[in-house]
Amino acid sequence: MAKKPKNAISPTRAENYPDWFQAVIKEADMAEIAHVRGCMVIKPWGYGLWERIQRELDDRIKATGHENAYFPLFIPLSYIEKEAAHVEGFAKECAVVTHHRLEANADGTGLVPAAELPEPLVVRPTSETIIGESFRSWVQSYRDLPILLNQWANVVRWELRPRVFLRTTEFLWQEGHTAHASEAEALDEMNQMLEVYRELAEDVLAIPVLTGPKPENERFPGAVETLCIEAMMQDGKALQAGTSHYLGQNFAKAANIEFVNKDNEPEFAYTTSWGVSTRLVGGVIMTHGDDDGLRVPPKIAPWQIVIVPYQPGGDDDAVIMDYAKKLQKDLCKKKYDGLPVRAHLDARDIRPIDKRWQWVKKGVPIVVEVGKRDIDAGNVAYRRRDNAGKNNFGPRDEFVGSASKLLAEIQKVYFEQAKAFRDANMHTHLTTYDEFVDWFNGGAEKAGHASPGFVRAKWCGERDSEELYAKHKVTIRCLPTDQSGTEGTCILTGKPATLDAIYAKAY
Amino acid sequence: MAKKPKNAISPTRAENYPDWFQAVIKEADMAEIAHVRGCMVIKPWGYGLWERIQRELDDRIKATGHENAYFPLFIPLSYIEKEAAHVEGFAKECAVVTHHRLEANADGTGLVPAAELPEPLVVRPTSETIIGESFRSWVQSYRDLPILLNQWANVVRWELRPRVFLRTTEFLWQEGHTAHASEAEALDEMNQMLEVYRELAEDVLAIPVLTGPKPENERFPGAVETLCIEAMMQDGKALQAGTSHYLGQNFAKAANIEFVNKDNEPEFAYTTSWGVSTRLVGGVIMTHGDDDGLRVPPKIAPWQIVIVPYQPGGDDDAVIMDYAKKLQKDLCKKKYDGLPVRAHLDARDIRPIDKRWQWVKKGVPIVVEVGKRDIDAGNVAYRRRDNAGKNNFGPRDEFVGSASKLLAEIQKVYFEQAKAFRDANMHTHLTTYDEFVDWFNGGAEKAGHASPGFVRAKWCGERDSEELYAKHKVTIRCLPTDQSGTEGTCILTGKPATLDAIYAKAY
Repeated sequence: MAKKPKNAISPTRAENYPDWFQAVIKEADMAEIAHVRGCMVIKPWGYGLWERIQRELDDRIKATGHENAYFPLFIPLSYIEKEAAHVEGFAKECAVVTHHRLEANADGTGLVPAAELPEPLVVRPTSETIIGESFRSWVQSYRDLPILLNQWANVVRWELRPRVFLRTTEFLWQEGHTAHASEAEALDEMNQMLEVYRELAEDVLAIPVLTGPKPENERFPGAVETLCIEAMMQDGKALQAGTSHYLGQNFAKAANIEFVNKDNEPEFAYTTSWGVSTRLVGGVIMTHGDDDGLRVPPKIAPWQIVIVPYQPGGDDDAVIMDYAKKLQKDLCKKKYDGLPVRAHLDARDIRPIDKRWQWVKKGVPIVVEVGKRDIDAGNVAYRRRDNAGKNNFGPRDEFVGSASKLLAEIQKVYFEQAKAFRDANMHTHLTTYDEFVDWFNGGAEKAGHASPGFVRAKWCGERDSEELYAKHKVTIRCLPTDQSGTEGTCILTGKPATLDAIYAKAY
Repeated sequence: MAKKPKNAISPTRAENYPDWFQAVIKEADMAEIAHVRGCMVIKPWGYGLWERIQRELDDRIKATGHENAYFPLFIPLSYIEKEAAHVEGFAKECAVVTHHRLEANADGTGLVPAAELPEPLVVRPTSETIIGESFRSWVQSYRDLPILLNQWANVVRWELRPRVFLRTTEFLWQEGHTAHASEAEALDEMNQMLEVYRELAEDVLAIPVLTGPKPENERFPGAVETLCIEAMMQDGKALQAGTSHYLGQNFAKAANIEFVNKDNEPEFAYTTSWGVSTRLVGGVIMTHGDDDGLRVPPKIAPWQIVIVPYQPGGDDDAVIMDYAKKLQKDLCKKKYDGLPVRAHLDARDIRPIDKRWQWVKKGVPIVVEVGKRDIDAGNVAYRRRDNAGKNNFGPRDEFVGSASKLLAEIQKVYFEQAKAFRDANMHTHLTTYDEFVDWFNGGAEKAGHASPGFVRAKWCGERDSEELYAKHKVTIRCLPTDQSGTEGTCILTGKPATLDAIYAKAY
C-alpha cells in the first residue's frame, strides 16, 4: 500500500487558510467559480451536501407549521423603492433586467438586447418586497393570519469579490416569510426559527453556534430586530450562518398589508423573514475540514460509508466484488438518523488507493477496504474519517451491526471537536480599548494564539462606538443570548455597560 | 347537511374549458398570476403537488445513475450565439440583464439602472449552452465520460400570453444534461429518460401518454432527435408533458466539448438533454379535474386523507376531536406507495361543510367526516373523490386497515378513466385531406364528438406538408412508438406513406 502523503491538501490550514479552503473545494470536487462572473457551479458532491441540508431543514420548517410556495424571480423596481432602509441595503449591487428580446444587430454578426421594458426588473436579492405584494392581496381580516410560508430559491446580489460558497453573485437559499396579527406572535416566530437554525447547525451540521441579536448597524435592512447564529471557523473568524428577522410593520406599511383586527380596526400586519443559504456548506468545510480535505458530518454525507474493493486481478476478483456488494446491501438495510444508511460501492476501474484518497478528501465518514485476506478471516478493515490514520479491523457482522453507532460517534466527535476549538478561542479577559486594539492587531498571536478568535466583552450600545471596532476590521457578531447581566465598562468607550457582546473578525 | 350545489366550479368544463381551468386553480387555491408580468405565484397546494412530483422524479433520476448539480442562472450572450439553431429557437423572447447596480436618479425621486455590463447576460431559458462550458473544461478523455447530471431550477422565457402552469415567463423544471463517448450510448440515454417520463406520467400522475419522436420542425432547437410524451386533455387538445433530446455533436461542437477516444483520436462528445416542468401540474388539472374542482392522484396528493370533525358545540366536542386525532395518527402509521399515508386533521374553526367542500375542490382523494353518531357506532363516514357524491360507511378499524387499498384504487380509477377518455377520442378512420380539414373545422363536433381529439393517420414525412396542417392550427404531436408499419397514403398530401402520425390541436 502506498505511503500516506504528508497531507492531501496543500497548502495546510496553518500555512494559508484561505487557499486551503479553495484547495479543499477543488480536491473534494464540490464546486467551482463559473465562467460567468461571480457565479458558481455546484458540483454533485457539494450539491449532495446541500440536498441533505435542505431535507433536514425542510422537515423542520414543515414541522413548525410552515408550507412551501414559490414567488417570482423578478421584482419591479417600484417595489424595491417602497421601503427606504431596504433600498439602502439592497438596491446597490443587483442584476437589472431592462430588455425582453434579443435581435440580430445591424451588421448581422451577433445579438443585441431589444424590446426595452417600461419598468426595469430586479433579479431578487431577497423577496420581502415581492412577497409583500401577495400578502397584501391575501390579507383582509385577522382570520387570514398568520401566513406561514417558505420558499427554496436562487437569489442574486452582485458580488465584486466572489468566493465559492461564501459570497457569490448567485446563491441558493430558503427564505421564510410570515405575517401575523400581533407583535408578540411575530416575535415568537422569529425566536422559533432561530431555534430551528440553531438545531440545524448544532445537531445536523455539528457546528456549535452562538445565538443572539445583532447590533442595530448589522440588522437586515428594514428589520426591527435581527437574530443570528454565529459560528467560529478554524481561522478564528466568525461566519454568520443564519438570520431570523422581526420586520415590525415596516414592510407591511410599505406594501400596505393591512387587516381588520378583532376590535374591527384596521391594523398593519407584523412580518418576519428568515433564511439560510449554501453558505452553510462553506461553514461545514471551514469548521470540520482538516489537512487531508473535507470531513462531512454523517447526517449530511451523501455517502456515509464507501466500500473500496481491492481486486488483485484474477479469479478472486469476482468473489471480492460479490462480497463487497453483499456488504453494501446489508449496510443499506441499517438505519442511522431515522433513514437507511447511505453506503456506496466504488466499483470504478481505477487504483483502490486512489479511490480511498478521493473519499478521504471528500470527507466520507467511513471507508471500508475489502480484500481477499479480510474476506477469508470474516473481517472488514475500515477507517473513520475522524481518525483517518488508524485502520480498524473487526468481524464483518459486528461492523455491520455497529455501523449506525459508529456514524453517531463520528457526528458527536465533530461537534465536540468544533465546540472545544471554539471554547478555547473564546477570550473573556480583555477589558480596555488598548487591550482590544492590541489583541486584534497581532497581540493574540504574540500571546501564543493562532488567531484573535472571539472576544467576549462589554459594550455600551452606543452607535458612535461603531467606528472604534470597525477601523480594526472587527465587528460585533451578536449580543449573546446568555447575557451575564453583570455591570462593567464598555471595552470600546470605557463607559458603564451591562451588555455582553461578541467581537470578532468575520467572513 | 347542506344540499350539494349543482357544481362547485363555474363555468363547467362543457361550458368553457379554458375558464373552467382558471376557476379550478383559483378554487383549489393552487396558484395565481403574479403582479409581475407573466410570472406566477405558486401557492402551497399547487407547490405541494410539485414537491411530490419532484420527489418521485428525483428518485427515478438518481436510480438511473444521475446526480444533481447546479449551474448559473445567467448565460453570457456570446454563449447563446454559438449554436445557430439554438439562437433561432431561444434568443427571441428572453430576459436580458444589462446593468448590475441601481442608483438614485438625478432628481432623487427613485432608482435607475447603472453600471452597464460589458456583455449582456441572458436569464437562462434552458441551460445547454452554460452547462456545455463546464463540460468542456471537465472532459479530456473518454474516461471522463459519461457525465450524467440533472438540475432543478427556474427558467425564463418571455411569454406574451401567459397562462398559469401552462405558459409563464418564469417556470420551474428539471433539466438533465449528459455527455457520452458514443452516439449509441447517448441514444440509449435519450430513450431511457423518455421511459422515466412515461412512467412518471402514467404510474405517478395517472396520465396516459403517447411516446415517440417529434417531426423535425417540432424538435428542440439544435437537437438531432426529440422524443416526447404527449397527453390528451379533457378538451381533446394535446399537452406536451416532457421531452428527451439527442443533441448529437451540435452543442459539443459549439462549446468545444472534445475528448480523446479509445483510439487516441480527438472526438466531439455526444450530448443529451431532457426536462419536465411545472406544466405537469397543469396537465394533472386538465386530465383529472371535474366540475367540482381538482382531483389529485393519491401518489402526488399533499394530503391523501383529510379528516373533518363535526362538532355540534358542547361536551361531545372534545370527544370528537380526540377520536379524530387518534384516527389521523393511526392512518399515518399505514403505508401507501412505500411512504406513510399523508392524513390531515382539519381542526380549523370554520363550518365543517365549508371545510369539506374546500377539500373536494382541492381534490383530496378521501375526506372522512367524524360525528358523534359514527363514533358511537364505531364507524367512519368517508367520501372518495373519484365518487364524491357517495357517502361510504364502515367500521373504523376496517377503514384504517383498507386505507392504502382505497388510495391505490383511486389512483387506478383516475388512470383508467383518463385512458378510456383518450382511447375514445383517438380517431383512426380519416384518410383524406378533405376529411382532415372538415374534421378539425367542426366536422368532429357535427359527428357527435365533443372535440376533434387525436387523429392517427399516415404522414409522408415531407417538410412542405407542414403548412397543410398548420393552417388549421393542427400539429403533429409525435410519430408514435407503436408504428403499424402498414403502407398507406399521407392524409395531407395523398402521397404513399408508411409513418403513423398523431395529429391534434395542442396547448
